[in-house]
Amino acid sequence: MSLIVQKFGGTSVADSGRLRHVAQIITDTYKAGNQVVAVLSAQGDTTDELIEKAREINPGASTREMDMLLSTGEQISVALCAMAVEALGFPVVSLTGWQAGMVTNTVSMNARIKKVDTERIEAELDARRIVIVTGFQGINRYDDVTTLGRGGSDTSAVALAASLHADLCQIYTDVDGVYTADPRLVPHARKLDEVTYNEMLELATLGAQVLHNRSVEMAKKYNVSLEVLSSFSGNPGTKVKEVAKRMEKSYISSVAKDTNIARIALLGVPNEIGTSFKVFSLLAQHNINVDIILQGIGHEEGKDICFTVAQSDLAMAEKLLRENQERIRFRVLETNADVAKVSVVGAGVIGNPGVAAKLFEALYDAGININMISTSEIKISVLVERRDAEKAVQVIHDKFFAI
Amino acid sequence: MSLIVQKFGGTSVADSGRLRHVAQIITDTYKAGNQVVAVLSAQGDTTDELIEKAREINPGASTREMDMLLSTGEQISVALCAMAVEALGFPVVSLTGWQAGMVTNTVSMNARIKKVDTERIEAELDARRIVIVTGFQGINRYDDVTTLGRGGSDTSAVALAASLHADLCQIYTDVDGVYTADPRLVPHARKLDEVTYNEMLELATLGAQVLHNRSVEMAKKYNVSLEVLSSFSGNPGTKVKEVAKRMEKSYISSVAKDTNIARIALLGVPNEIGTSFKVFSLLAQHNINVDIILQGIGHEEGKDICFTVAQSDLAMAEKLLRENQERIRFRVLETNADVAKVSVVGAGVIGNPGVAAKLFEALYDAGININMISTSEIKISVLVERRDAEKAVQVIHDKFFAI
Repeated sequence: MSLIVQKFGGTSVADSGRLRHVAQIITDTYKAGNQVVAVLSAQGDTTDELIEKAREINPGASTREMDMLLSTGEQISVALCAMAVEALGFPVVSLTGWQAGMVTNTVSMNARIKKVDTERIEAELDARRIVIVTGFQGINRYDDVTTLGRGGSDTSAVALAASLHADLCQIYTDVDGVYTADPRLVPHARKLDEVTYNEMLELATLGAQVLHNRSVEMAKKYNVSLEVLSSFSGNPGTKVKEVAKRMEKSYISSVAKDTNIARIALLGVPNEIGTSFKVFSLLAQHNINVDIILQGIGHEEGKDICFTVAQSDLAMAEKLLRENQERIRFRVLETNADVAKVSVVGAGVIGNPGVAAKLFEALYDAGININMISTSEIKISVLVERRDAEKAVQVIHDKFFAI
Repeated sequence: MSLIVQKFGGTSVADSGRLRHVAQIITDTYKAGNQVVAVLSAQGDTTDELIEKAREINPGASTREMDMLLSTGEQISVALCAMAVEALGFPVVSLTGWQAGMVTNTVSMNARIKKVDTERIEAELDARRIVIVTGFQGINRYDDVTTLGRGGSDTSAVALAASLHADLCQIYTDVDGVYTADPRLVPHARKLDEVTYNEMLELATLGAQVLHNRSVEMAKKYNVSLEVLSSFSGNPGTKVKEVAKRMEKSYISSVAKDTNIARIALLGVPNEIGTSFKVFSLLAQHNINVDIILQGIGHEEGKDICFTVAQSDLAMAEKLLRENQERIRFRVLETNADVAKVSVVGAGVIGNPGVAAKLFEALYDAGININMISTSEIKISVLVERRDAEKAVQVIHDKFFAI
């Protein structure tokens, strides 16, 4: 008998039809002789509707009361799903975050799970019940309801799987798994059977919306076997694990693009120690994340510093830098929001210098100019013009995955 | 400094405009130097919408999961109301039933409050916060969420007022208070400044939907000062207390009618001991409440037993009695659903034989036939034809309250 944690996202539980289908997946797993803990998000647009209600009343509502409000979304999902399971004739119980023992820190709307008191869930499993738990939420040490912020339900599922020593944590979503590229861009993209935690982490950072980073980090830390699959298709998904089997010669697992990015260039910065520190500590103080950084060697007249930030942070970053122009002493500030980041990810990048060469060759052949380059052990990212992004993904994919 | 519990029903918190208005009432009370605990129902039709969602998925859903679902309605109300109070700049915290320590028994969907652990609420009040609590819900000893059934939010408010030793419990609703008759039937009906607990209990039983019986019983038991008033008008309401001041000569406080009633007559029952017991214990075993009972003295050929039940129980009562006809040995069973009960209520009924005479005179003058009569210490009820009910209320009201 295995213990399986199954997580279903908002689109998977959007209406009664979808909920009945989810109940079928859950009870099929149970009938096969497994213990099942299901973790659910709020239905479809429920969370957005609740946020809209709050804005109407008080755009500056406290995060504590926002959590009180938003946490009702998942509670509605789990109760309705439990009813759907009851309708199929199986023993079931739904639990909220606090009933399931999801203890978090006290940061409202962006809480971190500190521990899971699994006593109640284990008692319910011992009684042979299917357990359906609210994702995205917990309780802090003051007995206040908290929510986990973006990707919270994935994290709830992985935390439960880790605490319960589950044999498998299945993340049901609206895509079939992890592909070698976005199938909407590259029609012949292939689904991967397995990827490593590290590859998944890079992919999540690069804008692949399959799994949230926090959940992958936690899965890696506690060695939770993950599987990403579709609640719609019924096909096998992609397994995420420490070491992934890979087809011969396929050094990389996936090509991704991120267009939510902008470039800032500071030109004519004095060529002296401490300038970079001034720039990046200023941005960090205001929670602005910097991605690719490129800094020339510099010469007597000064040096140039280029870096990328999320588009949503561009205005704030520009404002901060201009306010501090005298202190940082740059000559010119240039911004460009018409850029995109295209990346190849794979455990095979390290130790295969040919990967970079192949990537550059593909872009050269397509006449696409490379703006900046950044590499990690399992990733190579290049910055290109926004209008070239889709083509870049296609030609790189063809170069690496052509049959 | 007084401690005031204020309860707001579903229509009072139906949308953001109404919620802002409720926040104004709460903060005005707080600004006047009082501690305030507000108890809220779910918004408008929320509960009905949730019930509909549940029916769509599983018409036979367990009451445990129904409670899990329905309890979200009040949680949304209190979070939004707390945000509205925050917008006015006052310190506030919203609490669910379990956070507020509302401990109930384990009967889902119709739970009874066993005790209120007021520790959290008192700590919040000590910190000078306005406290907004979900009505209608609590937690049982297994840490499962429970709901209180009909009129539950009134009961929550009175239980909190009793446990916190509040100075006043205000029930805000969509009517101005308790009237001498339904103002829709009797345009010149007058609002009463004060009524007694017992009068309020009789009025609730008689179909006046102002306060639920359970809450009045609890208020009487713990001597909680109640006030029923409108969240719409801003007028003073009706106080409910042990002893009520009454205008001179006004023996009765109110005239009420109840049309949700049916009469059953068993004719030719053997004139022997134990027949009534057989009939009424049979009905009680099936949770059928019997109201007015009339039994003739009887003679050799047998006796007749007449009684009234709620219309919704009529079919079941008739079926049970017919199934047991041989055992009870009645000759004929007659039913009549075209009846109505009209009652006068008042602490002055006892010790004033003139009240009954005046009532009968009013009906006689109007040519209305009296079918059955029932009296208690503070009430006289008569059964009339349905078509005469409205007129009966009017002529009785005029007889007692004419200026």
